[in-house]
Amino acid sequence: MTSYAGQQFIGGARSATGQPLLHSLDARTGEALPGAFYQASPAEVDAAATAAARAYPGFRALAPERRAAFLETIAAELDVLGEDFIALVCRETALPAARIQGERARTSGQLRLFAEVLRRGDFLGARIDRAQPQRTPLPRLDIRQCRLGLGPVAVFGASNFPLAFSTAGGDTAAALAAGCPVVFKAHSGHMATAQAVAAAIVRAAERCKMPAGVFNMIFGAGVGEALVKHPAIQAVGFTGSLKGGRALCDMAAARAQPIPVFAEMSSINPVIVLPGALAQRGEAIAGELAASVVLGCGQFCTNPGLVLGVRSAQFSAFVEQLQARIADQPAQTMLNAGTLRSYAHGVAQLKAHAGIRHLAGAEQAAEQASPQLFQADAQLLLNAEPLLQEEVFGPTTVVVELTDRAELLAALHALGGQLTATLLGEPDDLAEAGDLVALLEHKAGRLLINGYPTGVEVSDAMVHGGPYPATSDSRGTSVGSLAIERFLRPVCYQNFPQALLPEALHDGNPLGLLRLVDGQPSRDPIR
Amino acid sequence: MTSYAGQQFIGGARSATGQPLLHSLDARTGEALPGAFYQASPAEVDAAATAAARAYPGFRALAPERRAAFLETIAAELDVLGEDFIALVCRETALPAARIQGERARTSGQLRLFAEVLRRGDFLGARIDRAQPQRTPLPRLDIRQCRLGLGPVAVFGASNFPLAFSTAGGDTAAALAAGCPVVFKAHSGHMATAQAVAAAIVRAAERCKMPAGVFNMIFGAGVGEALVKHPAIQAVGFTGSLKGGRALCDMAAARAQPIPVFAEMSSINPVIVLPGALAQRGEAIAGELAASVVLGCGQFCTNPGLVLGVRSAQFSAFVEQLQARIADQPAQTMLNAGTLRSYAHGVAQLKAHAGIRHLAGAEQAAEQASPQLFQADAQLLLNAEPLLQEEVFGPTTVVVELTDRAELLAALHALGGQLTATLLGEPDDLAEAGDLVALLEHKAGRLLINGYPTGVEVSDAMVHGGPYPATSDSRGTSVGSLAIERFLRPVCYQNFPQALLPEALHDGNPLGLLRLVDGQPSRDPIR
Repeated sequence: MTSYAGQQFIGGARSATGQPLLHSLDARTGEALPGAFYQASPAEVDAAATAAARAYPGFRALAPERRAAFLETIAAELDVLGEDFIALVCRETALPAARIQGERARTSGQLRLFAEVLRRGDFLGARIDRAQPQRTPLPRLDIRQCRLGLGPVAVFGASNFPLAFSTAGGDTAAALAAGCPVVFKAHSGHMATAQAVAAAIVRAAERCKMPAGVFNMIFGAGVGEALVKHPAIQAVGFTGSLKGGRALCDMAAARAQPIPVFAEMSSINPVIVLPGALAQRGEAIAGELAASVVLGCGQFCTNPGLVLGVRSAQFSAFVEQLQARIADQPAQTMLNAGTLRSYAHGVAQLKAHAGIRHLAGAEQAAEQASPQLFQADAQLLLNAEPLLQEEVFGPTTVVVELTDRAELLAALHALGGQLTATLLGEPDDLAEAGDLVALLEHKAGRLLINGYPTGVEVSDAMVHGGPYPATSDSRGTSVGSLAIERFLRPVCYQNFPQALLPEALHDGNPLGLLRLVDGQPSRDPIR
Repeated sequence: MTSYAGQQFIGGARSATGQPLLHSLDARTGEALPGAFYQASPAEVDAAATAAARAYPGFRALAPERRAAFLETIAAELDVLGEDFIALVCRETALPAARIQGERARTSGQLRLFAEVLRRGDFLGARIDRAQPQRTPLPRLDIRQCRLGLGPVAVFGASNFPLAFSTAGGDTAAALAAGCPVVFKAHSGHMATAQAVAAAIVRAAERCKMPAGVFNMIFGAGVGEALVKHPAIQAVGFTGSLKGGRALCDMAAARAQPIPVFAEMSSINPVIVLPGALAQRGEAIAGELAASVVLGCGQFCTNPGLVLGVRSAQFSAFVEQLQARIADQPAQTMLNAGTLRSYAHGVAQLKAHAGIRHLAGAEQAAEQASPQLFQADAQLLLNAEPLLQEEVFGPTTVVVELTDRAELLAALHALGGQLTATLLGEPDDLAEAGDLVALLEHKAGRLLINGYPTGVEVSDAMVHGGPYPATSDSRGTSVGSLAIERFLRPVCYQNFPQALLPEALHDGNPLGLLRLVDGQPSRDPIR
């Protein structure tokens, strides 16, 4: 730690003019960690957004290869952070070291995936309609199109992924890849982690001679509002609660210039257990499902919060097995005291509801989260009871038994948007699952068969998104290479001389792109 | 005309339960045309949105070829509408017959372009990440992605393009291509035209055995609000005023489930005349520019409303030439009395401003729009004076003389978002125009060199969009094949058996798509 500890990262420098001093807490003991963080002042929020705006013209004009090298250098800087870094993250989040090591690998892997995307160049969306001087009644002029970063992006990281959905996480990687400088709002739950990662990004920016201000980070409660309302900010990435995400959306929509917000918010991730699967492997599913529910103390956006099946002796047996499995699961420490309070509140609400029965789980302790299992009346789902539609963040899930297939479809129809929806079935079940898939396609961004939603692959085909309230805009994903598209806009060049065109659109195709030329994909130069 | 004249189009049938009766007017005489239109009742708005929602599952599940054939059939139905149809459109809009014939050809051409897009299949965005069972530490499952229509789309047509940006116009074509049923709000300025086109669409839907409700249309003042707030509607397309578009955006953002709005609103389309061009061909430019300003009575979204140049003897001469040319232009009839009132109001505001001089143009008559030329102090632009940032819809333009290049750049920097920005220059001018292009890329969706913005090509590379307030979302275009992307969202399929996957993602690649397979574009089947 240098004397800059706890200061904002603004335009390649550090700054601390604000009050009050903030402290990061040990997630297990609640004790303040050594050192303190300065709340960003309004002037610092402005300075951070302004630094990003200043960096933008130079940064977005860099060849994709330069940005790819920058992302790889960030990845390398993260990979060499030592055991003390891992220990620090564990201390701030109560997550185990193996998980943090895995998450770090995922985070650097994600940065490298975007470097590949930059080299592949398909994100540029290059299109060329050649001139047709002989066309009647009017000649066609040469028209070309490619995509450009929107401008500075504000990113709000998640409590539950201190690395992969945070400072150098997916939103930051996607924005930087798109050519958009970032202002990151450090999460209060892991400010020391954020500081170490931000310092790694800034080191990489210096090594790669990026414009100062390509990455900025501010600390503080409530500073996000000024950031989202700052005229320099052109888009927002957010991972967190429905309440928090919706508040940002509302602010962004009310700006003089409204801007897009990509908020990943609330999902209960229904899992549907089909009759053949129950008959064949009900007990195994109960064990696997219980493991998915309690994985990482249930603190995943894709945690399975709702389990659906049609009434049968096998389903009843399965519920009993799940009950036994959940009862067996130990309590775990949550990310922080606020998360535990929310969990306890959510569990208490479920317990207090007349239509919901508590099936398993120890009394909620003061310090750790006990896994819980509930069963709710089908009617609650069919009536879209809000309590069943809202995510209870933590190791709990709700089973619902439906009378028949028609009621199952009706219950799914009544659900809000989800990040994931899962079918567990044998081949005979799946042969008849067309109606379920057709319905679930409109409810979720990712459909799984015979798996559990808690693992999210970082790849080209992944969608970590979905209809509201899972996200604020179902057209985006916050995991996988498609995430870059959220931060790009198309620009069209009509009758341009070569020298003024972006490289992606030069006749000679110097970037070797697959371009849409007169409606046909082609890597050929334009003659 | 049948006895259904003036009724809503709902779910393949007609309906008239609402009041009052509305009349379409002859744009030249202001007289009511024969026949009347029923204001849609709240129940009819609901019925139209519900019909679209019912049509959606069947419509979106159709093979792209089926939707392509539907679009082509609409095009054919439009093409065979007779001279009485052309005469009707002319009567409602005061636009000349040749223009309407051209616009009809553009409208059917646009529908056919989307049919091509459907057959090309790139809109599906198919991506396949094959399973890697041997990967360590964890195996990768098979993950596939493609895109799906968002759901029912509400479309609001424009006054100024009764065909190409209206009932069967670009937004409708893009939404239908994406697999989204449409509820179209007929523009009050051309309800009879809308009815004839809607009837053509419904005939095509019947011929192609599309689900009833794939296209619906409602008449009436103020019915748009209920439409945008209807839970079945999943996206909005709009072309019109900033005030109207922003109101829809605000309504959509305030919904329980916010939905995207693609509003094309206000643009003054700056034209920058560079010194070499002034020296070489200032007089020719004055003539061409005057023609572009008065084309179609200035009633184009891309009408050049601002002409910028750096102070010089040549620029002064050019302004005098432009003055003479504008003074020569005859008055023209506008689309309707409301448009003329708005134009007269806008002209009066410019005339009344102390920093703006009136250079040419006859006194505004009661019945027709007289072309006008103004010159404004540079300081007004530099201070982002709202009067200069707002579109005056009609045949007028404002010249601004800047002291030097730096002031030109500062003035452009102060401009809001635009649909287009144009540079007029000789090779020597353009050799030094890199800074202008870099700035204009962030101000407009389409940049032109040595052309005039009033012609908008319908093609793959076109962008008719741009930063706010030109549109509500700079990531979209409302002209050209990219327009389909606004109405699509990605869905991911993990570990799916072939039979449950969409055809686009089948191993055998039955649609012959270029897919992103393990990060490489490929038309090969998956082995």
